[in-house]
Amino acid sequence: MSKIFVDACFGKETPYTPVWMMRQAGRYLPEYMEVRSQAGNFLNLCHNPKLACEVTLQPVNIIGVDAAILFSDILVIPDEMGMDLEFVAGEGPKFNDPIKTETDIDRLIGGEEAANKLTYVYDTIKLIKKELAEDKALIGFTGAPWTLATYMIEGEGTKTYNICKKMMYSNPELLHKILAKVTEVVKFYMQKQIEAGIDVVQIFDSWAAAIEPSKYDEFSWKYMVEIAEYLKEKFPHIPIIMFPKGVPAFLDKVYGNFDVFGVDWSTPMAFAKEKLGDKYVLQGNMEPCRLYSKEETTKCVEALQGIMQGKRHIFNLGHGILPDVPVENAKHFINECHRVSKT
Amino acid sequence: MSKIFVDACFGKETPYTPVWMMRQAGRYLPEYMEVRSQAGNFLNLCHNPKLACEVTLQPVNIIGVDAAILFSDILVIPDEMGMDLEFVAGEGPKFNDPIKTETDIDRLIGGEEAANKLTYVYDTIKLIKKELAEDKALIGFTGAPWTLATYMIEGEGTKTYNICKKMMYSNPELLHKILAKVTEVVKFYMQKQIEAGIDVVQIFDSWAAAIEPSKYDEFSWKYMVEIAEYLKEKFPHIPIIMFPKGVPAFLDKVYGNFDVFGVDWSTPMAFAKEKLGDKYVLQGNMEPCRLYSKEETTKCVEALQGIMQGKRHIFNLGHGILPDVPVENAKHFINECHRVSKT
Repeated sequence: MSKIFVDACFGKETPYTPVWMMRQAGRYLPEYMEVRSQAGNFLNLCHNPKLACEVTLQPVNIIGVDAAILFSDILVIPDEMGMDLEFVAGEGPKFNDPIKTETDIDRLIGGEEAANKLTYVYDTIKLIKKELAEDKALIGFTGAPWTLATYMIEGEGTKTYNICKKMMYSNPELLHKILAKVTEVVKFYMQKQIEAGIDVVQIFDSWAAAIEPSKYDEFSWKYMVEIAEYLKEKFPHIPIIMFPKGVPAFLDKVYGNFDVFGVDWSTPMAFAKEKLGDKYVLQGNMEPCRLYSKEETTKCVEALQGIMQGKRHIFNLGHGILPDVPVENAKHFINECHRVSKT
Repeated sequence: MSKIFVDACFGKETPYTPVWMMRQAGRYLPEYMEVRSQAGNFLNLCHNPKLACEVTLQPVNIIGVDAAILFSDILVIPDEMGMDLEFVAGEGPKFNDPIKTETDIDRLIGGEEAANKLTYVYDTIKLIKKELAEDKALIGFTGAPWTLATYMIEGEGTKTYNICKKMMYSNPELLHKILAKVTEVVKFYMQKQIEAGIDVVQIFDSWAAAIEPSKYDEFSWKYMVEIAEYLKEKFPHIPIIMFPKGVPAFLDKVYGNFDVFGVDWSTPMAFAKEKLGDKYVLQGNMEPCRLYSKEETTKCVEALQGIMQGKRHIFNLGHGILPDVPVENAKHFINECHRVSKT
């Protein structure tokens, strides 16, 4: 059975424009909060295939999106490389022993060996595929090497990225060594996600905007492209979505063998279409806070439909949905995307 | 005596391209830390004209910038409107009673009455002007109404701006009421800064990038332009610098009567020149983290000089200098800007 979401990723004509939402399996859903509290905490939920499968499927059933996205966290990768991830309540992720030297990166587990440790992710995928309706797609994902490296180097979230950037400008060789090692793990990790059953790959570069435009290719994009091209060679039938958040000034320089470019909300869709619309299908890009108002949601969905005309487009938010959005507003967004693109 | 910095703001030819740095009177300078510890805390320092004058002058003397910028904080405005600013150690600014309703904004002090309470700022300016060398300019500044409003509504710094944005999309009238009231105070505040002796105005919209491009004019830029045009009518000899941080996608739509557009580091200078170089002098835009490396600083300064050719340009960083930058690297930046533009 053909999946409308996969067809749309390849730019084929579809009966309507499919839609999903970044962070759709998340805290705005009371059903998610219920399962999360069963799990005890966020990391336990990532490690528990049965519960992770359950929350992955929730938005498909509750709000009617066209694709599920694997419930997991980008930081399970450095965790299984040996960095010992913790989630501190109210503060977010933490690595107590961030990478400072070549020795620190050398002692981490690399390549297929690290990817082999992520069995709970592959088990989750297999469970989801048993339960997900055949016409819906399952998106697997990874963080981009740069985004993962920011946490591995800073030890936690950061406003200034000053430790990473000090490395970028004064010891770029070490940063490249970290990025290359993470890239190798990600290749095997995504290969194994595909072998476990995912239909689509998304690579999230959430902290893309932390790099100045003239250095973005060198420290992030080229590694993302390397991963995409590794996967494309082995699995040409699996579409790949690249989502570098907040890099409008880089759009002129985007290259590589992938299928869909995820447009964040700071990049106007008309601008993205002009620069990239012929080469890539575009995904996005409603500002997630528009979900606070049904009226503003409808206006934006109609404007996006006007720009894209239902061609080479996947509806999505331009970043993740926030926890305090009413569920009915999220449903309204999904319904409106279907309504405007069916007529 | 003519000031090279003021001439450059008006696009006149100057013997070299002047330079200053955002946050140049700041924590990377041991001399600043010394005065700050004398003051007890950051807010005391803002309230003490003698000490604020001293730290304002430090970077002129220590690293040789061409303009001083008044030492103060953007949040003294809502503080004097009656919002009771606190700086919580390690957490940043805090207002315990953020604006939620029309009543909350109505009870704040507005217009000239609020501006009149900022006497310590005008006193600081008068002291600085007595001591500053005649060929150096003094920059006065304000936060843009939008940036100020984010703190007044959220009560503190925010990653998601979700409270402001809920207001933007579901109760825009209230947000406009707040913005209009702040705009009125800012007009009088900047008028009084000019009357006290500043040579140049800079309006900082530090959180410009939090607004989606299609709403940026409505919720921020038009208020900044209103302030600029109010001041231009009264004080045409005072140049105005607008610095909306992180809005490359808005550059096509920039309008208004002001002199200098401050380019942040996420916007490539060549792109800003193409879009705005004929209409406005451009200020910027080295990525501040390049200061960690003298070599990368030189490369960037040379590249900027290559793009701007010493015409209609003021050197600066693309955002504030970070506290852990070595002072000698900051000096190197200033020296390099002078070197490349004198030859």
